[in-house]
This record gives sequence, structure tokens and C-alpha cells, in this order.
Amino acid sequence: MTTVPSAAATAPILSLGDFLTHWQGHRALTRRVIEAFAEDQLFTFTAAPPMRPFGPMAVEIHLVSAMTLHAMQTGDWPEPDWTAGPRSRTELLNAWDDLTARLAHDGPTTDPAFFTRTHALPWGEMPGWVAAMYNIDNEIHHRAQGYVYLRALGTEPPAFYER
Amino acid sequence: MTTVPSAAATAPILSLGDFLTHWQGHRALTRRVIEAFAEDQLFTFTAAPPMRPFGPMAVEIHLVSAMTLHAMQTGDWPEPDWTAGPRSRTELLNAWDDLTARLAHDGPTTDPAFFTRTHALPWGEMPGWVAAMYNIDNEIHHRAQGYVYLRALGTEPPAFYER
Repeated sequence: MTTVPSAAATAPILSLGDFLTHWQGHRALTRRVIEAFAEDQLFTFTAAPPMRPFGPMAVEIHLVSAMTLHAMQTGDWPEPDWTAGPRSRTELLNAWDDLTARLAHDGPTTDPAFFTRTHALPWGEMPGWVAAMYNIDNEIHHRAQGYVYLRALGTEPPAFYER
Repeated sequence: MTTVPSAAATAPILSLGDFLTHWQGHRALTRRVIEAFAEDQLFTFTAAPPMRPFGPMAVEIHLVSAMTLHAMQTGDWPEPDWTAGPRSRTELLNAWDDLTARLAHDGPTTDPAFFTRTHALPWGEMPGWVAAMYNIDNEIHHRAQGYVYLRALGTEPPAFYER
């Protein structure tokens, strides 16, 4: 990784509100991608075995997102029970909407120091902003794989640029 | 999109240096994904027609990234000639490395006000931070589609969490 040493490099460029708006925009798009799958394809279809169907990926996104919001409120990152997520499209969309509402309510109360502190995640130690951005990166990454699955199914995916 | 009104929402959470480190980490990963394709597959293979091969996606990422760095230095967003990008894996990797070096050199001199000002892009007006993040989001999105292509080709993609 290229390091970036510079006095100007410490200038702040993104606020908590910007970050939450960014995240919620991605959540709205991922919800549309979940909805674009037929119920019976969401948890069964894969365009490139042994890749998982999009359903389990979306459940993973949901569990990591819930974990991230929990950490933003408490500083703790207990590893989720990966087998305990939603098991149908309806359950997943309901859990998604519940978390979106909780994020809208609780996100703005996050202590900004969360983002600069070092955190212990199940997969390593990192600054809060890295953990928070990784959470969104992982959502974009797996959602894009869902785009390929939809194309392979002959379904037009939602526009990427719409949030 | 959910709006996030809050006094705390204006607290800065990400610095210019964090942003550049984040971007360079993604650039390093995308370079490994480009390298993971055989020369003859990069510009021909698609896992889900009518989707493009990964080569043209990576050329698009390169052109948008070059455009974004140009804007960070000048405030201007001239639309690139989309047909003028690299045409082979070697040309693409050379252009990639050249831009990585320019980003390392010029990125830290970016005026932090770039991120809060409104910019006129070929695809609309938006704050600088939105344009800058969208650039990276688009890279993650298309790179993840390259992951599916690699899996469909029977190739193990680079680890997503390594930057």
C-alpha cells in the first residue's frame, strides 16, 4: 500500500453526516438489487459455481452492517452468528428496513472519535474509519456480483448511479 | 435517500490522507485483478452477455480515475475520450502504474475545499466528496464483476480484504 505523508493530508474531507448519507444511499440500492431477484432464485442461483447465490451474500452484508452500527454505538464488535440471518427474501427485506430505520435514528449520535480510534474486529485491528468503509466496500463488492447474476438471468439490474 | 439531519453530523471523520490511502489500496487490489486475467481473456471473456469483458471495465476505471485526479488538481472535469484508453493488458498496467505514481505525488496537494465544493461533472452536479467516493465505488463495483468472471474461468481471484 502506498503511504501518503503530508501535512495537508490531515485536513478533514468527510463528515459523519456525509458518511451516513453515503451508506444509506448504498443500502437503498442494495435493497433494489435484492428485490430484483425472484424469490426462488435469490437463495439458489449462482452464475459461477462455487460462488454463493446472492441471498447468502446479502445476508452477510446485513449481518456485517448490523455489527458495524452496533460498534458505532458501543465500540464492541462481537462476531455475528453467521447462520442466524434472514432465510427468505421477505425476512431479509424486513430485517433490511429495520436496520435502515435504526441507522437513521442512531447513526447521527455516533461519537466522531469512533472513526479515528483503533478497533478490534474478529478479522483484525484497524482504525474505525477503515472498518466503517470496509463495511460499505464489502456491500458494493457483493452487490456487484449480484448484478452479474441478474444479467445472467436476463434481468436488467437497477441503475448503479441511483442512490 | 434517507437524509441525516444532526448537529454532530458535521463532525469530520475522514482526512485527505485517509481518502488517498483508501483509494491507493483499492488501486493495488484492482491491479492484481487485471493481472489475474490471461491476456487473451481480459478483452474478450464475459460471464454474462451482453456485459462487457473486464478489460473495457478496467479501462473505464482508469479513465475515470485519471479524470478525478485531474479534477482534484484543477477543479475541471473534462469528459475523457472513452475510445482512447489502453488496448492491451501491458498498456493498461503501464498506464495504471503511471497514474498510481501521479496520485501519490499530486494527491496530497489537493485543496481540501475540493471535497465540499459543488462540481459540474459530465453526468451531473455534485459535491466533490460524492464525486470522489463515486469514483472508488465504481472501481469496486466493476472489479467485483471481474471477480465473477475469474471464478467462471476457474481462476482464484485475489483476496478482497488485502490492500
